Amino acid sequence: MSISTSPHSHLLHPNHNHRIHTATTTTAFSLPSSRTFRPIKCASTPAQLQDPIPVQAQAQERVFNFAAGPATLPETVLRRAQSELYLWGESGMSVMEMSHRGKDFMFIIEKAEEHLRTLLEIPPGFSVLFLQGGATTQFAAVPLNLCTPDDPVDYVVTGSWSDKAFKEAQKYCKPSVIWSGKSGKYTGIPHVGTFEQNPDAKYLHICANETIHGVEYKDYPFPENPSGVLVADMSSNFCSKPVDVSRFGVIYAGAQKNVGPSGVTIVIVRDDLIGRAQGVTPVMLDYKIHVENGSLYNTPPCYGIYMCGLVFEELLEQGGLKEVEKKNEKKAEILYNAIDGSKGFYKCPVEKPVRSLMNVPFTLEKSELEGEFIKEAAKENMVQLKGHRSVGGMRASIYNAMPLAGIQKLVAFMEDFQARHD
Amino acid sequence: MSISTSPHSHLLHPNHNHRIHTATTTTAFSLPSSRTFRPIKCASTPAQLQDPIPVQAQAQERVFNFAAGPATLPETVLRRAQSELYLWGESGMSVMEMSHRGKDFMFIIEKAEEHLRTLLEIPPGFSVLFLQGGATTQFAAVPLNLCTPDDPVDYVVTGSWSDKAFKEAQKYCKPSVIWSGKSGKYTGIPHVGTFEQNPDAKYLHICANETIHGVEYKDYPFPENPSGVLVADMSSNFCSKPVDVSRFGVIYAGAQKNVGPSGVTIVIVRDDLIGRAQGVTPVMLDYKIHVENGSLYNTPPCYGIYMCGLVFEELLEQGGLKEVEKKNEKKAEILYNAIDGSKGFYKCPVEKPVRSLMNVPFTLEKSELEGEFIKEAAKENMVQLKGHRSVGGMRASIYNAMPLAGIQKLVAFMEDFQARHD
Repeated sequence: MSISTSPHSHLLHPNHNHRIHTATTTTAFSLPSSRTFRPIKCASTPAQLQDPIPVQAQAQERVFNFAAGPATLPETVLRRAQSELYLWGESGMSVMEMSHRGKDFMFIIEKAEEHLRTLLEIPPGFSVLFLQGGATTQFAAVPLNLCTPDDPVDYVVTGSWSDKAFKEAQKYCKPSVIWSGKSGKYTGIPHVGTFEQNPDAKYLHICANETIHGVEYKDYPFPENPSGVLVADMSSNFCSKPVDVSRFGVIYAGAQKNVGPSGVTIVIVRDDLIGRAQGVTPVMLDYKIHVENGSLYNTPPCYGIYMCGLVFEELLEQGGLKEVEKKNEKKAEILYNAIDGSKGFYKCPVEKPVRSLMNVPFTLEKSELEGEFIKEAAKENMVQLKGHRSVGGMRASIYNAMPLAGIQKLVAFMEDFQARHD
Repeated sequence: MSISTSPHSHLLHPNHNHRIHTATTTTAFSLPSSRTFRPIKCASTPAQLQDPIPVQAQAQERVFNFAAGPATLPETVLRRAQSELYLWGESGMSVMEMSHRGKDFMFIIEKAEEHLRTLLEIPPGFSVLFLQGGATTQFAAVPLNLCTPDDPVDYVVTGSWSDKAFKEAQKYCKPSVIWSGKSGKYTGIPHVGTFEQNPDAKYLHICANETIHGVEYKDYPFPENPSGVLVADMSSNFCSKPVDVSRFGVIYAGAQKNVGPSGVTIVIVRDDLIGRAQGVTPVMLDYKIHVENGSLYNTPPCYGIYMCGLVFEELLEQGGLKEVEKKNEKKAEILYNAIDGSKGFYKCPVEKPVRSLMNVPFTLEKSELEGEFIKEAAKENMVQLKGHRSVGGMRASIYNAMPLAGIQKLVAFMEDFQARHD
């Protein structure tokens, strides 16, 4: 029996409060809650006729998904994508079937860029690229595009991701780690001015938010070398708050945390940095090629770009990144307060001033209970709370699309779990 | 007024015959035609409730899409994807939201590989990779993985794509063009044994089907150097017919022609060729990294891989690639016969023995009528028939998912157009 026809299960839907909550901010997308389940019921019809998947599989509730990425997406965006999947607008086809050079997809990618430029207030003189390969591809593309094999560049290593970026750069230039949080188990971020940059460094590379360790820059260092630029991997806090793009030479981000599905990498590059790629640069890693071709040198990840466009539109509907940041601050505050107020039952190892608003790692004082915590949470429809295999413990990733209701439910569960095990 | 509620428009649906036709072969997916429109009607419900898109946009008919890629996908696959988009199985989330290391996505990617191995009868000793970046990224990855900067390699250039592959290889090794179809405007393929290979060439690179020029290998050359391997870009005929994978060192293909949406690149590589990547190889282009990590070194294009898996399943439902090839041969025969039987009104420049079953370029003797042909065809719901900007004329891409009914309708239109303009 499908929950889509059961008033009781409707009340049990974990995101019920979320829809009420967001109804005030995403009016163009939100549904009267009494109608919310029709799409599931309808959409499941062909599945029940066509597919090997059992009926009850289509009748599942949505869970609160705390995964670090790919991560939860706005329900309104998923419903719209579902409604448009088979036929987009008047195109007579799915977005997945569109020629990337046809007018319909051109409209989609241009709108996506326009919305992103509005959200981040990207100034003139910066190009926006929709690429493939993830931030890991950019670990190579950045040095290949910005310097020669002999150029010194600086890396601040605040966690696993900035460390990977540094290691990849060793193939293409002379990178130095000018600050590392390794000895402190990556629980801090250096204060601006507390590390020494190479006077000739072509760029200073940082990871704006470390997904695994949960440290996030609250302000950004300036490159001290006048000819150097600031480069940031913003994969896990991209579009979670306003950013002064003009301070950066290159910003890059995988989409699969805050702005879309995996398979899309967004690069924002200052135009004067383009055109000096090393000879060994694969054509697909050359920013100049992509800028000159508007991200259409070859076939881009069209459907992923379409999804990002829907998310950008939804973020604008919310009132833009200032409003989004307020919500993210509120969500994070509630969760960190619950951890800090637990009298040590829960612990977050990260230094308070640099705690991430996106990824909240925490441990149990009684670490032997962590498995049970994760298991019980899953039974309550809160999934993917296990910490990264490299650090253990728990991690709650609470990106833009994680509703306040998800945080409230997690905190209530944490208090109940503590009461039962303290 | 939605066509999904109109018996007349039902009969007018361009793919109506297609469903009748395929009902015999895709039983697990096909619907009684009387029910076929329900998913559209249902899916359009949330759109009408949620979206700014006008109602009639959701009531559009599907067109016959002759685009060269991204290209038409099986209707049954699109309907299933639509039914599962919001909630997949019992996961409580969309495939787009799943952790790529979670059990649900692991199931999806392992099934996709299993189905592909079954379809192509991939022998042991070959790895299957689901990557990003398109065939264009492989133009660099192949030489970077298979040879040193001083190694000679051979390229047979039969069109734009093999020419691009050759040019990219010049960055990483010593490639030679041992045969070029350029002087013949890329209308032919060399007979096996009619070109001379370098005795020391580490590999012989071919493009199995040239999407732009419409030439396709019907048999494959052997590398004459015992230490050399055959490498093929199969982007535009991948999974359109059986292939003896054991004859190749590397097969690579962008998914967006026959097996899925854009954003997924499939690489099949012989295991003994892995592990000798050049030092300047970006980690994301190193086959060894991806083989060791089961395509999960970083976040893969999860949703695209899921879509490919659905297409693979549908191809198996059809009876596998032998059956698929028969259908493709029949479709191509009907179209080429119409061109050759037009007494010169329509012309295909490609040599008959090597005409592509996938991409059919043709011109009008009265070339001034080409614009009108394309415009009138579009009015009849047959779109994307314009030839590539580099060659002009028309091109009908008729990949696996193009129904026989699409070919029949195109041929009928061609005859009618000729009758009116001859």
